[in-house]
Amino acid sequence: MEPVAPGKTRVGWIGTGVMGAAMAGHIREAGYELTVYNRTRAKAEPLLARGAVWAPTPREVARRSDVIFTMVGFPADLRQVVLETDGVIHGVTAGSVLVDMGTGEPALARELYETLQARGVASVDAPVSGGDIGARNASLSIMIGGDAEVVAGLMPLFQCMGKLIIHHGPAGAGQHAKMCNQVLIASSMISVCECLLYGYKAGLDLRKVIESVGSGAAGSWAINNLGPRILKRDFDPGFFVEHFLKDMGIALAEAGRMGIALPGLALAHQLYQSVKALGHGRSGTQALMLALERMSNVEMPAV
Amino acid sequence: MEPVAPGKTRVGWIGTGVMGAAMAGHIREAGYELTVYNRTRAKAEPLLARGAVWAPTPREVARRSDVIFTMVGFPADLRQVVLETDGVIHGVTAGSVLVDMGTGEPALARELYETLQARGVASVDAPVSGGDIGARNASLSIMIGGDAEVVAGLMPLFQCMGKLIIHHGPAGAGQHAKMCNQVLIASSMISVCECLLYGYKAGLDLRKVIESVGSGAAGSWAINNLGPRILKRDFDPGFFVEHFLKDMGIALAEAGRMGIALPGLALAHQLYQSVKALGHGRSGTQALMLALERMSNVEMPAV
Repeated sequence: MEPVAPGKTRVGWIGTGVMGAAMAGHIREAGYELTVYNRTRAKAEPLLARGAVWAPTPREVARRSDVIFTMVGFPADLRQVVLETDGVIHGVTAGSVLVDMGTGEPALARELYETLQARGVASVDAPVSGGDIGARNASLSIMIGGDAEVVAGLMPLFQCMGKLIIHHGPAGAGQHAKMCNQVLIASSMISVCECLLYGYKAGLDLRKVIESVGSGAAGSWAINNLGPRILKRDFDPGFFVEHFLKDMGIALAEAGRMGIALPGLALAHQLYQSVKALGHGRSGTQALMLALERMSNVEMPAV
Repeated sequence: MEPVAPGKTRVGWIGTGVMGAAMAGHIREAGYELTVYNRTRAKAEPLLARGAVWAPTPREVARRSDVIFTMVGFPADLRQVVLETDGVIHGVTAGSVLVDMGTGEPALARELYETLQARGVASVDAPVSGGDIGARNASLSIMIGGDAEVVAGLMPLFQCMGKLIIHHGPAGAGQHAKMCNQVLIASSMISVCECLLYGYKAGLDLRKVIESVGSGAAGSWAINNLGPRILKRDFDPGFFVEHFLKDMGIALAEAGRMGIALPGLALAHQLYQSVKALGHGRSGTQALMLALERMSNVEMPAV
């Protein structure tokens, strides 16, 4: 595949939520012709005001684009916009590329790759980490699975959105790398909340605790960034609990298929089920604190 | 208490293992008169060669010192060198200070504080993080519990050994803060090993995985520093599994006393029991990988 370029490559974008809108915006700014679709049209309006063109269906996006990005919430949504009625697959032409940047099932990434390959269409999975801030600042970490030649051709587009862009292997490998990221976060979040709960009950000043522990061998992005938010009782997302639950569910299912035991991930998954049961599915992942407090009949005051 | 100073304050040091020898060395370099005792005299020789004076018992160290440091392995060792036959308590004079820099029981720290207070002797708990490298470079994080005035007077000595020196509260608070540090490490280590196990079974290049996940919201000291050692199958300590087990046991007992549930810590404690059962009590904490591999009947090759 030849490298993409503005004026030559027509880009389509399906899914213009907080992340998707920011990412697609960078592509438009770089000068690419951009066609967009979103379930709720209103969320696409800022992009349309900057010169993107609306399409009424994912199929229509595909018909007008050489590279079609998807950034939708759940595997069922991805399946719908690609494979079902009015989906991408009914509009694509040979030589085009589908790039899914949402986080989802490695198995589905491979299924899309094979299904589209039969029509002469390439498929790449390229989930990201870095959240809404990374999307806005074009500083995402992008984890890519797909054919090396295709990935190389797409690089100028990835460089519009991300700073750390790594090709991990064939179709599905990007999703697997993202699962590694989520597995790494899962038990780390338990450790952050348990550290703070212990310190609170021991009567310590938790800001001093974070200062003492945050820069050494115990240090992590989570304790230094989410720790202070927990102390303020700021449980706004960041990253939604319900999306993290979805990701942990995928990782556990994949681990089951691969025949490995991940007891820490399983524990985190159950504790986050508790967070959701407490009504915090749309809070940020730091709301794990609420489940641990509830278990121990503790409620830390805001400091 | 007046601030300590070389030429005025006589310092004693009990416990000259890897950490203790490096820390006491900095105090000697700063010009303090130094008396040392260690169970195995040979380990104190390098300090003696630099002008420290040997004492045959902890009692004798105490008799000749204004500030007596302890840095020994387990709570039973601390109890022995302070309270039992030939212990510090039989040599101290009113106005002197005991400073325990080992990691141990908050309850024992309070017990020593009260026992010594009755003799007009101050007691401070000041455990550290930063390991042998931090001890050598005088860049330890020091977490302090004890009377504010005494802690203030000791600052010139702490500054010989550490960079981040934080007074967390009354006697025992330093040990509690260190327990927060260990609780924070416990589940984080599970997350690091599970991330790598998942990635290995998914067929990924684990060096690329660490690169993708290490600098974002999943990032931690552990994944970036211990992750690469795990890939090389380098399980040398760092920090001994058996010392970490001791610390987790203390934290779990304290949590029980405080009436809180720490399920992640409990899981980590059990997994590290498995590491010890596999013969790796004297390996570094990254040997947790071996227990998780064993559970899933996997053995990752060195890369």
